[in-house]
Amino acid sequence: MLGSTHGSLSTDPRTTRAATCGERRVSHAGDTTDLDVGGRPLHASVPDLDAFFRPATVAVIGARDADDSAEAAVTRHLMAWAERLDARLLPVNPRHRTVFGVPCLPSVASLPCPVDLAVVLTADPACELGELAAAQAKSAVVLAPGLTAAEGRRRLADVVSGSGLRLLGPSTGLDAFAHLRDDLGGPAIALVTQHGDQGHPVLALQDLGIRVSHWAVTGDEADLEVADFVAYFAEQPEAGAIAAHVDGFRDGRAFLLAADRAARNGVPVVAITSGRTRAGTRTGTGSRTGTGSRTAASRADGPTGSASVEDAVADAAFRQFGVIRVDGPDRLRDTAALLARARPPKADGVAVYAPSGSTDGTGGTGAYFRDLATAAGLLVPSFDAEKQAELRRWIPGSLSVANPVEHGGRSVGGRYGPRILDAILADPSVGVLVCPITGPFPPMSDALVQQLVDAADRTDKVVCVVWGSPVGTEVAYRRTLLRSSRVATFRTFGNCVAAVGAHLDHHRFVVGYRSPFESAPRTPSPSARRARAFLRPGQRLSEHAAKRLLRAYGVRVPREHLVTSAAGAVRAAGLVGYPVVMKASGAHLAHRSERGLVKLGLTSASQVRDTYRDLTDIARHEGVGLDGVLVCQMVEPGIEMAVGVVDDGVFGPAVTVGLGGVFGAALGEPAVRVTPFTEAEARRMLHELPGCALLEGVRGRPPADVDALVDIVLRVQRMAMELGDELAGLDVDPLVVLPRGQGAVALDANAVCR
Amino acid sequence: MLGSTHGSLSTDPRTTRAATCGERRVSHAGDTTDLDVGGRPLHASVPDLDAFFRPATVAVIGARDADDSAEAAVTRHLMAWAERLDARLLPVNPRHRTVFGVPCLPSVASLPCPVDLAVVLTADPACELGELAAAQAKSAVVLAPGLTAAEGRRRLADVVSGSGLRLLGPSTGLDAFAHLRDDLGGPAIALVTQHGDQGHPVLALQDLGIRVSHWAVTGDEADLEVADFVAYFAEQPEAGAIAAHVDGFRDGRAFLLAADRAARNGVPVVAITSGRTRAGTRTGTGSRTGTGSRTAASRADGPTGSASVEDAVADAAFRQFGVIRVDGPDRLRDTAALLARARPPKADGVAVYAPSGSTDGTGGTGAYFRDLATAAGLLVPSFDAEKQAELRRWIPGSLSVANPVEHGGRSVGGRYGPRILDAILADPSVGVLVCPITGPFPPMSDALVQQLVDAADRTDKVVCVVWGSPVGTEVAYRRTLLRSSRVATFRTFGNCVAAVGAHLDHHRFVVGYRSPFESAPRTPSPSARRARAFLRPGQRLSEHAAKRLLRAYGVRVPREHLVTSAAGAVRAAGLVGYPVVMKASGAHLAHRSERGLVKLGLTSASQVRDTYRDLTDIARHEGVGLDGVLVCQMVEPGIEMAVGVVDDGVFGPAVTVGLGGVFGAALGEPAVRVTPFTEAEARRMLHELPGCALLEGVRGRPPADVDALVDIVLRVQRMAMELGDELAGLDVDPLVVLPRGQGAVALDANAVCR
Repeated sequence: MLGSTHGSLSTDPRTTRAATCGERRVSHAGDTTDLDVGGRPLHASVPDLDAFFRPATVAVIGARDADDSAEAAVTRHLMAWAERLDARLLPVNPRHRTVFGVPCLPSVASLPCPVDLAVVLTADPACELGELAAAQAKSAVVLAPGLTAAEGRRRLADVVSGSGLRLLGPSTGLDAFAHLRDDLGGPAIALVTQHGDQGHPVLALQDLGIRVSHWAVTGDEADLEVADFVAYFAEQPEAGAIAAHVDGFRDGRAFLLAADRAARNGVPVVAITSGRTRAGTRTGTGSRTGTGSRTAASRADGPTGSASVEDAVADAAFRQFGVIRVDGPDRLRDTAALLARARPPKADGVAVYAPSGSTDGTGGTGAYFRDLATAAGLLVPSFDAEKQAELRRWIPGSLSVANPVEHGGRSVGGRYGPRILDAILADPSVGVLVCPITGPFPPMSDALVQQLVDAADRTDKVVCVVWGSPVGTEVAYRRTLLRSSRVATFRTFGNCVAAVGAHLDHHRFVVGYRSPFESAPRTPSPSARRARAFLRPGQRLSEHAAKRLLRAYGVRVPREHLVTSAAGAVRAAGLVGYPVVMKASGAHLAHRSERGLVKLGLTSASQVRDTYRDLTDIARHEGVGLDGVLVCQMVEPGIEMAVGVVDDGVFGPAVTVGLGGVFGAALGEPAVRVTPFTEAEARRMLHELPGCALLEGVRGRPPADVDALVDIVLRVQRMAMELGDELAGLDVDPLVVLPRGQGAVALDANAVCR
Repeated sequence: MLGSTHGSLSTDPRTTRAATCGERRVSHAGDTTDLDVGGRPLHASVPDLDAFFRPATVAVIGARDADDSAEAAVTRHLMAWAERLDARLLPVNPRHRTVFGVPCLPSVASLPCPVDLAVVLTADPACELGELAAAQAKSAVVLAPGLTAAEGRRRLADVVSGSGLRLLGPSTGLDAFAHLRDDLGGPAIALVTQHGDQGHPVLALQDLGIRVSHWAVTGDEADLEVADFVAYFAEQPEAGAIAAHVDGFRDGRAFLLAADRAARNGVPVVAITSGRTRAGTRTGTGSRTGTGSRTAASRADGPTGSASVEDAVADAAFRQFGVIRVDGPDRLRDTAALLARARPPKADGVAVYAPSGSTDGTGGTGAYFRDLATAAGLLVPSFDAEKQAELRRWIPGSLSVANPVEHGGRSVGGRYGPRILDAILADPSVGVLVCPITGPFPPMSDALVQQLVDAADRTDKVVCVVWGSPVGTEVAYRRTLLRSSRVATFRTFGNCVAAVGAHLDHHRFVVGYRSPFESAPRTPSPSARRARAFLRPGQRLSEHAAKRLLRAYGVRVPREHLVTSAAGAVRAAGLVGYPVVMKASGAHLAHRSERGLVKLGLTSASQVRDTYRDLTDIARHEGVGLDGVLVCQMVEPGIEMAVGVVDDGVFGPAVTVGLGGVFGAALGEPAVRVTPFTEAEARRMLHELPGCALLEGVRGRPPADVDALVDIVLRVQRMAMELGDELAGLDVDPLVVLPRGQGAVALDANAVCR
C-alpha cells in the first residue's frame, strides 16, 4: 500500500509550477467570461497586483509632518517603507509645501505621473479616490475606516468600480505596510488577513528566519478581497504557501476559484476562517456573508455553540479545493511555516525518534507520539526486519527499533545518533522524521539537536523537532534549532501532528487533484427546460410537483397519479397496480404519516375509495389545503437515504446526501459538497456517512445499489447548478436505495422556489 | 441559567479540604478491606510516602566517587539533593572507606538506624532490598532497569511484598531526584510520570515561577504505581493540581479509587494516558495492562489507528471520576498550571478582551476567539444592556462591547484599559477573562500587558493571556507576564481554550460529585444466586439460557419456550399465544435471520409445525447443533437498543448501551461506563448516543420508555458487578424499548462465561 502511494508521489506539480503558471496566466487571462450553466465563473480572475506590492511610485494623499498628528506618524512610516522598496514617495497636501523635507504636491491632479500606489489618509477618501482613478493610479489603500463600514465601503466601491484603480481597504490600518525582510531566502509564506493583528503571528516568523514575501490586510474589502490575493499569490514563484485569516467571504465562489488555481499550481493554502460554530449571516450592510460574519443582532444574542450547516458547507468546500482549515493563529503559523518550506514528501510514513520507553518495550514518549500521530490519521510504519537489524547494530535490545526508534539518551544516541538518524531517513517508507524533546538536558540535548540539524542538512526529507520546554531561551533551541532552515521546530505536539498531517495530505491531494471547473457543464441540459415548467416562483412545491421536477432530471419516482375524486383514485390504483399507497398531497404538509395522511398497502378498490374519503376528511378537519390525493405504486423496502440541495448564500448551491427517514432525522449530519464536484467526490460523500455500512449491507443483508445512488446525486447536482437561482432548496427523503442492480426510487420530495 | 450555575458554584470543597482530608484519613485508613459485592475495593489505600518525599536519612547503596563512573555521578547528584532537603546521607559500599569525603558504611546491616530512603545503585538490587526490608528501611528507589523488565520487576516485587518497605522503580532514572525549588509560593503541581522525560515540560514550569511540590518517576512499577502517588498527592494541602503521564495501568481500579479520592477533595487530576488509538493488551510479562501498554508483538505490527473499545472504556472511566485527559505534554503542562493556581470560578462565563474587529462590528480576533471557545463548549455570554452601556462610556460605537470587548489598541485601551478591565471583571456572568495578544506592538502591547497584570492583582477571577508571538523573548512577555503569579499565560489558542474549559468543567464536576463507591452494593442480591444456576464455565450460553440470566435480574423477556419437537412447538405456541416467532436456538448461531433460522408472525398450528421442520432441516443441512427451537411471543415494535457488559481487563466490568439491531451494527459506538456508576450516570449515557433523539421520538413518534431502559442498564450493572468474575461478556441486542409507560423487552441475548 505504501509502495503504491510511494509511486503516486513521484510526480510533483511544484517542480513544474513556474512553467504551468506562465502557461495558465496566458490561457486564463482573457477568458474570465467563461461561465458554467448557472452563469457562475469557471476561472479565477487574477488581478495584477505587482504595482501594489512593488510600487515604483507611492503617493501619500493627506501627508503631514506636524508632530503628534496621526498622519505624520503614518507618513513617516510610509517614507521608511517606500525607501526600503526603492520607491519614489510623492506627498500630496494642499496645505503644505514640504513634508519631512520632501516637496509636497497640492493635489492628486498635479501628480507628475500615474502612480503605482496611492495611500489615502484623508477623512473622507471618496473624492480623492475619484481623482486618483481619473489620474490612472494603479492601486490605492485607505487606512482609515472612514464613515461607517457599510456606507463607506459602498461609496468607495462605487467610486473605483469600472476604473482601472484597485482599492485595498478601507480600514486596513498601517499593517498593510509592514516590514517584510528581503534578506531571508527559501520559499516564502504569502499572507492575507482582514485585520492587522491577525497577521502578526505569521509575520513574526521572520524573526525565526522564515521568509514572508507578501502581506495584504484587506480591511472592509470595498474592492480587493481575500480571494484576489489568494489567486495572485498562487502565481508567485516565491510563494511556498499561502496563509489566510478570513472573517467572512464577500464572494465564496471567487475564493474557491482562487483555491482551485492554487491547487493546480501545487501551492498549499492554509486558512483560518472564523465562525466555526455558527451560520455566517448577512450583516446589517447586507454586503458580506461568510462563515465568520455576524449581524449586530446575532452578536447581541451571543453565540449558541450549535454547529451550523453553513459551517459544514464551508468545511466541505475547503476540503474539495484543498484549503487546509486550521484553528488558532499559532496553528496557522506553524502549519504554513512547514508547508512553505518542506519539500514534497518522498513517502507518507512518519518516523519517531525518542528517548527510551519502559524496559519491557512499552510506553514512553516515542510510543506516545506515535499513538497521537496515528490517532490523527498519520501513518507510523514499523520498520522491516532488515532495517530493524541495521538499527540493532547501535541500539540495545531494551530500546525499540521498530518505530519509534529509541535513542536512550547519552549512551546510545550520544554515540551513534548520526548513523541512526541517517539509517532512519534512508528508509523508503519514511517521508518525515519527528523528534520530540520534552525537556532540555544539556549537554545531551545540545548534542541531539546538533545531530538533528546536521542530519536534516544531509537529507531532502522533512525533519521536525518538538521542543517541549516552555522556557524557549535555551541555547540549543535559539542558537541551533531556530537557525536551521531545514529543521521545522514546534512547541506543541498538537501543532506538530497537525502540520505534518497537513503536509502529507496536501501532497496527496495535489497529486490527485482534477479541477471540477474544467468539466463543469456550460450549456443547459434538456432537463432544465422540462423542469422549469414545474417551478412556481416564491412557492413551495407539492410532493407531486417536486417529483415531476426530479423525473425531469431522470430520477426514478414511483408510478403515481394525483387524483381529486374517489373514482379517480380507484382508476389510478388500477393504472399503477395494487397494492397502492395513498397520500394527501399539498404544498404545506409535514409529518403526514403521524397525522394519518398516508396509508400503505391498499389492496382493493373499496379500500382505495374509503381511504380517499378518510384522507380528505382528515385534511378538511385539520384545515389543510390539498391539491389532491396521490395514488402511488408500493415500492419494495431498501435503505432509506436522503438527497438535497442547500444554498448557504456564500459558496453557491450545495448538494447533501445522508440517511433518510426516521433515522436520518435522528442521526442527521448529511455529507455535503459545493458545486461543481466530480463523481469520485460524490462517492467520497457516501464513505463519510456514519451509516455508510448500511449501504454495504450489514448482518448478511445484500449491498445496496450505490451506483444508482451516486447517479442520482450527480443528477441532483446538475439540477442545482442549472436551477440554483430559481430553486431555494430541494429535499428528497426518503430515497429508497434497492439492492445492487435494482436502482433507487424517490418516495417523497419537496422543493422551495425562489 | 447562568444564575443557577452561579448559585451552584457557591460552595467550594477546596476551602474545607484540609479538614475533610484529616477526617477522611482517619475514616479510611483502617477499612481498606471494605469490598463491593464483586470483591473489589471501595477505598483507595493511601501509602504514607512522607519518608520518601522528605527523608531525614538517605542511604546510597553502592555509592562511589571514582571519577567517570556512572555511580559517582549519581552519588554526587544525590548528595546535592539530600543537602537541599537537609537529609543525612549515608553512603554504603564495602569497597570504600569514604565517598566524596563522607565515611562509607560496609553494608546495609551496618546502617545506624532504619533509613527513610535508600537508593540502590547495584547491578542486581534484589538482595540489597531484602537487607533493607530486614533493616526496616521505609522506602527505596532502584534507578537501573536491572535484568530484564519482566523478571527484574517480579523478583523485586517478591522481595518487598509483605515488608514495610515501599519500592519505587526499577528503572526510574535519576529524574526521581530532580531539583524541586522551595522558593516558589502558591498552590503547587504534584507530578507523577512513568518515565523521566515525560515530566520535564511540567518540571520546567518552575522556571516560569510555578511551584512543583512533588515528582515521582515510577519506572517499571514493581511496587509503587501511579495510583499510589495520585492517592497520596490528593491528601497534600499544597497540591493545587495533580499531573500524571501514564503509559499503562497495573491496576485500573486503584487509579479510579485514587481519582475518586482526589475528586472528593476537590483536587483536579490532569492526565496523559498513552494508547489513545489502540487496545491496551497484556504485555509479555502479563504483569501490566493498560490503555498505553503494548506487547512486543503488537508493536511489531505497528499501530492500526482503529479506536479501541478499551480506549473508550478508559475515556469513560476518566470522565466518571473527573480525571481530565489531555493530549500532549504541553497541554498537560498548561492545563495543570492553570488548574493548580486558579481559584474556583465565580461564574462559568468567559469574557474576551481583544483589539478591533471590522468596523461593521464583525470578525476580528475577539470574535474568532469567542467562536473557538464556543465551539469547545465554553460559555461566552453577551453582556447585558447595562454593562454594555457602562463600557460604551469608554469604547466608541465602531468597537464591540457585547463580548468580545474590543479595546481598539492605543486610542481606547491605552487610555481606559484599567477601567474597562475592572468593569468586565466586575460582571457577575464572568468567571474568566481571556486576552489574546496576537503579536507584540510596543509600546502599546507593553502597556496592555501591564494593565492585565495589574487588573489580575485586583481581582480573584481568572485572567488569561494568549501570547501569539512565537519568539518569546519579548520584554512584555518575559519581564511582565511570566513574573505575574496571577495571570495564566498561554502560547496557543488551543491550549488556552482547553485549559479554561478544564478549569470550569472540573469545578462543575467537583461541586456535583457523589462518589459511586459510597453507594456500591456490598452484599449479593438474591438475583445472583438464581443467575449462577444458569452459568456454564468457559462456555457461550444459548439465547434461551442468556435470557434466563436476564430474567433472574428482573429484565423482561418475551414469553417463550424451548421445544425439541413439532408437537412441543404447537403446545408452546398455544401457551405463549398466537402470533408467535420461532427461532433456532443454539450456543453458536449468528446472523440467524439472514440464514432463515428465524420466522416471524406464525398464526396457526400448521404453520408452527411446518416451521419447526424447516428450522431443524436448515440447521441439519448447515451442520449447526441446536439445543432446540424457541417459540416466542411476538413483541410490538419499538426502538431497538442494545445493552451489554464488557471487561477490558484494566478497569473491571463495564456496561454499554447503544442502538441495537441493524442500525446498531452500522452506527455503533455505544456509550460505556465502568462500574460502579449511579442512575444519573446511566441517564447521561443515553444523552451521549448519536441516536438519542430516537428515544425522545422523532417525526411525531411517541417518546420511548427511557425509565425502563435506565432501569435495565442498572440491573445489568448489578449483574456485571456480582457476576463479573464469572461472566466474560453479555450482549442484549435487540432490546426493544416500547413507548413511554410500556417498558422494554430483551428480544435476543447472548453471554459468554469465563
